Amino acid sequence: MIKFNEKLKKVCIEKNNRLCLGLDIDNHNLVNSSLDYMQSYILDIIDATIDLCPIYKVNFAFYERYGSKGYKILENISKSIEGRAISIADAKRGDIGNSSKYYAEGIFDSLNFDSITVSPYMGVDSIEPFAKYNRGIFILCLTSNPGSKNIQKINDSNNIEIYQHIVKMAIEMNENNNIGLVVGATNVDYMNTIKSISNDLPWLMPGVGFQGGNLKESLNIENRGLSIINVSRGILTYGEKTLDDIREATEKYTNEIRSFL
Amino acid sequence: MIKFNEKLKKVCIEKNNRLCLGLDIDNHNLVNSSLDYMQSYILDIIDATIDLCPIYKVNFAFYERYGSKGYKILENISKSIEGRAISIADAKRGDIGNSSKYYAEGIFDSLNFDSITVSPYMGVDSIEPFAKYNRGIFILCLTSNPGSKNIQKINDSNNIEIYQHIVKMAIEMNENNNIGLVVGATNVDYMNTIKSISNDLPWLMPGVGFQGGNLKESLNIENRGLSIINVSRGILTYGEKTLDDIREATEKYTNEIRSFL
Repeated sequence: MIKFNEKLKKVCIEKNNRLCLGLDIDNHNLVNSSLDYMQSYILDIIDATIDLCPIYKVNFAFYERYGSKGYKILENISKSIEGRAISIADAKRGDIGNSSKYYAEGIFDSLNFDSITVSPYMGVDSIEPFAKYNRGIFILCLTSNPGSKNIQKINDSNNIEIYQHIVKMAIEMNENNNIGLVVGATNVDYMNTIKSISNDLPWLMPGVGFQGGNLKESLNIENRGLSIINVSRGILTYGEKTLDDIREATEKYTNEIRSFL
Repeated sequence: MIKFNEKLKKVCIEKNNRLCLGLDIDNHNLVNSSLDYMQSYILDIIDATIDLCPIYKVNFAFYERYGSKGYKILENISKSIEGRAISIADAKRGDIGNSSKYYAEGIFDSLNFDSITVSPYMGVDSIEPFAKYNRGIFILCLTSNPGSKNIQKINDSNNIEIYQHIVKMAIEMNENNNIGLVVGATNVDYMNTIKSISNDLPWLMPGVGFQGGNLKESLNIENRGLSIINVSRGILTYGEKTLDDIREATEKYTNEIRSFL
């Protein structure tokens, strides 16, 4: 059976793209704020872009804010993407082993996402239950927010920063070739440091798009794995936010990415 | 308006208890594995113990494994506890500010839990949106699983361990007197270290119960805040797991806790 990281690469090559469309939809910004409208709008966006996009990322926060009704939408988004692209459950889960096992059941068996983002604070045994599946696990490594300095950038007694420990841990956990890293695309120096130690792990890179300008650098300093470029607002808020606008923005990013490949 | 940490103390004093019943129900261990039965069993457990228990903790993994149907049960559990005890959404969330804001909406506005557990890997701005509510925030500090060594116990260049950075961060974030710490009850030395620096922050302490024996030490080394003793399996798997058995186990733990207060 093809391993997740190989499948990810295969789909990216087939669509000649590295774009991950982040489906972070705030219904209050839509012409109709009902959840029914929000869901049909999202499913339409998927249909309008799926010939171009190899990957879709769904940030669970935007759906859990509506409780079980939001969760129902997550189920339908996953179904819509299934078999046509790679889906990432951006849920940042992580708990003691037994609980992580149930989170994995929820995300992989019940919702049927292809991959998940996990938070590493609780260590190896909090991630293992996810990694046992032949699905993708993107471990938070270095994030693009200001708070990345509070823990991630602390130097240990050997002058090694915490995010580097995460890279090491991720490599050791990659027995099933299904582990990746979340690497914020906002600082080239840090990206170079991670590149030098992350072997062939794929990177999921948020932070490109709305901030602009980092796309080329993110692809240029590409690691031996695969850099996946996540864009959310840069596409979702383009123009008047019609399906044509979103298609146009997706083409724009796709062409830009292709020009650097 | 009474602050969360004051309210927590008040409810504990009123019920003369520090017990937090962890509602980690695995339906496969019940006489009837249907989700309807699971829900009614949980609501009956709450009714059978709520005169004794000041706090209930709901580990979201046990519910999310069933997708939107599990989320529906979370909504009903929260409603059942509301106004009769303090509810903790053990969801270990944490994301960039805008996403954490939506997670907070989900847990506090939509599900109406009194408090939440959060993971600190993404730093201060990933926790702030929760802390703006007058609800409780228990930040993962030192957990009871083997993986706590992978990140939490790393020494920084000044010989300060990461979990101690979390304590410092928590104190700085406690402007609204609503921040607490998750401290595993499995190592007295570590507990003493944290006690010496955690001021009056309350502790949520998992790890007592099934492992046994730590209850006295957990309460004895009590910090200046309030130690909340979480017990899940130690109560939920007692005897034949009838409501009478669960009531009896809850009384047993309550009496033990009261003997040390």
